[in-house]
Amino acid sequence: MVVELISVGTELLLGNIVNTNANYLSKKCAELGFSLYFQITVGDNEERFCEVLKSSLLRSDIVILTGGLGPTQDDMTKEAVAKIFERRLVMDEPSKERISSYFSFLLKSNPDRIAMNLGLDSVTQNNWKQALKIEDSIVVDNDNGTAPGYILEADYMDKKKRVILLPGPPSEMVPMFEHHIFPYLNKLQNKVFVSKMVKICGIGESKAETQILDLIEAQTNPTIAPYAKSGEVHFRVTASADSEEEAQTMLEPVIHELFHRFDINIYTTEEEETLEQVVVKTLTSKKLTVTCAESCTGGLLTGRLVNVPGVSSVLKESFITYSNEAKIKYLGVKEDTLREFGAVSERTAAEMAVGAAERTGSDTAIAITGIAGPDGGTEEKPVGLVYISCYVKGEVTVRKFHMKGNREKIREQSVIYALDLLRRNVTKL
Amino acid sequence: MVVELISVGTELLLGNIVNTNANYLSKKCAELGFSLYFQITVGDNEERFCEVLKSSLLRSDIVILTGGLGPTQDDMTKEAVAKIFERRLVMDEPSKERISSYFSFLLKSNPDRIAMNLGLDSVTQNNWKQALKIEDSIVVDNDNGTAPGYILEADYMDKKKRVILLPGPPSEMVPMFEHHIFPYLNKLQNKVFVSKMVKICGIGESKAETQILDLIEAQTNPTIAPYAKSGEVHFRVTASADSEEEAQTMLEPVIHELFHRFDINIYTTEEEETLEQVVVKTLTSKKLTVTCAESCTGGLLTGRLVNVPGVSSVLKESFITYSNEAKIKYLGVKEDTLREFGAVSERTAAEMAVGAAERTGSDTAIAITGIAGPDGGTEEKPVGLVYISCYVKGEVTVRKFHMKGNREKIREQSVIYALDLLRRNVTKL
Repeated sequence: MVVELISVGTELLLGNIVNTNANYLSKKCAELGFSLYFQITVGDNEERFCEVLKSSLLRSDIVILTGGLGPTQDDMTKEAVAKIFERRLVMDEPSKERISSYFSFLLKSNPDRIAMNLGLDSVTQNNWKQALKIEDSIVVDNDNGTAPGYILEADYMDKKKRVILLPGPPSEMVPMFEHHIFPYLNKLQNKVFVSKMVKICGIGESKAETQILDLIEAQTNPTIAPYAKSGEVHFRVTASADSEEEAQTMLEPVIHELFHRFDINIYTTEEEETLEQVVVKTLTSKKLTVTCAESCTGGLLTGRLVNVPGVSSVLKESFITYSNEAKIKYLGVKEDTLREFGAVSERTAAEMAVGAAERTGSDTAIAITGIAGPDGGTEEKPVGLVYISCYVKGEVTVRKFHMKGNREKIREQSVIYALDLLRRNVTKL
Repeated sequence: MVVELISVGTELLLGNIVNTNANYLSKKCAELGFSLYFQITVGDNEERFCEVLKSSLLRSDIVILTGGLGPTQDDMTKEAVAKIFERRLVMDEPSKERISSYFSFLLKSNPDRIAMNLGLDSVTQNNWKQALKIEDSIVVDNDNGTAPGYILEADYMDKKKRVILLPGPPSEMVPMFEHHIFPYLNKLQNKVFVSKMVKICGIGESKAETQILDLIEAQTNPTIAPYAKSGEVHFRVTASADSEEEAQTMLEPVIHELFHRFDINIYTTEEEETLEQVVVKTLTSKKLTVTCAESCTGGLLTGRLVNVPGVSSVLKESFITYSNEAKIKYLGVKEDTLREFGAVSERTAAEMAVGAAERTGSDTAIAITGIAGPDGGTEEKPVGLVYISCYVKGEVTVRKFHMKGNREKIREQSVIYALDLLRRNVTKL
């Protein structure tokens, strides 16, 4: 099945809101195993809307529309669809009743000026517009607003098409899709799609792709698709089959082969699992605690770890030691070390990690010191020079990096490499 | 001028990333006074890309493309554009040199196994693809990655068109647009557009809009457009005139009126200035130092402050005290306080701020303690309860918040409110 998305709304064209609907619906279509080749955004303009809808109908089996179902003059999605399919708009009695009771409820519960200001003192003529449905379409209840959705099954150019009209606000659209549209679409096909996300850290995108180019080129089912993420590379592996079990079985050898090629560089195959979750999970399972000593990252590394609910069993405290004095006072970095090698040096990084571990009694510690820029770089120590050290039960490893990009990017990468270094060293234990 | 946007990337069609590029570029087009009627997203597929590009070229004067400029096999934007305009791809020597030096820089500075793993031991054949330019196009430098951008001015169906090719990652695309493309586009028209971004913290979006509804409804030139941002509200005020000076003059009374209505709630009118920059600027100008004591935010507050280059003159160190023991050990929070009121309480928040200031000798301190969830909430202290305290030269203020949303959102909002509280208290001095 080929699906196309059309988002309707001038506010999207003006950049007033981000189109999260397209993102959500695309994900859902992928989950359903539908092919989605185009997303289109168009304003509240009937002529231009009809132009894109006609193209979409020619190219696809299902068109999903969001937006333009509201009560105002410029909401015209339903009217335009009716025109294209030469259908009348007819009053839908249940919708009419619901709108009427919705407004009397709002009025009762907001009998003040705010309700009046919102125009809730009476159902305006406009609102009845929302009770009209395209003849012979299926009305889909909206539990979070007044505009219902619609499913229209009808022929266009002698081919059967499905047009799904959804309200624009995500708070209305998402529950409507989840509860009514997803089950409707799921019934349209007999294949089951199952996918795994193979997440890799420590290898660049193009190197990672080169390493499995033969697999990517030979792919049919399962498919392998690469996704670059800052500091990471993800491969989505998807199998389609008659049953979930069969799809799972088809995935196994591919996942196995990826582990064979990338080994420890793979940190998870779970869609939702993040690098910091894996680090916290690994520490927890090995009953190890951790502390961080951060200079240029200024708290971002610990902030990432604290993203993980339940981190309190492995992390009790961290140090943000931005100045030399703080490095001496809280971590016991030697004045001699700072004088001789500087704050951004292998030696200082090592002393920071050891000091943090010793002063907190943690089993592991990770320290970052670097030059994030834009100032502070020298020829010998340029912007982007970062030392990351990892202490695990008496052993210290220090890695030196030259990172590219602006201050934000250098700090973000430092955090990812630090998490990854800790993950590798702890996993080895 | 009519502009059209085409975002290229299968990851967008699969819903793996949200299309923030389209949002950003739409905003910029609106700012430039361009008409934008369609945004299109298409996958890494040459045939389908050419189909939409041809339609876009027929409908518009300028087409802005993002994505598909990378080194991999499926990156084909440049190649397809060259084909449509019947241009050759030719080696661009400066690009070639930059890529070469980028890789030799990476190799020199990372001569260990990690560098080898990252694929930095040699420039792969793929990477040279990025040194090819469309014949007679303008190459636009990428300061944050390897793929340059391009501007092509050429005839299509006997009409002059402009095609702008930009890299997909926002961290590369946005600075490139800001520094090179925006000025280029701005020169194409005779009206000058000047805008100010009035950034507000501490008032909700709908409240803020209600407060200036009369101005929004009466707007013609300058225009006022609201942008909601997590925890903040921004209003872009744009004037168009024959000269920059004239536009500036037209902006003044509107900005003045907004200050009259929002007062201290406005923290800046500069597009690029962030809340943390204002905080650091204010502290610097008053010669004050700051330290943070973070519990549920786990370093994110200090991380935000360290975003600001030059923060080292006001911030030397911070504490991440996630456990009760750490709050006692590093901040001198009393055991009695924790026992009697709990870690998430007004009293604990106050003692954290005072303790942090005293132990570091800082002029100001900010402390955050709260329940970010998803676990740990009770009826009395639900998830979302956050106390933020601010110490400024002997005085402590504590604010209690009930925040909505998931763990990430609660922590993000906590950071914003903490920065804002510090800003207000320091500005008052």
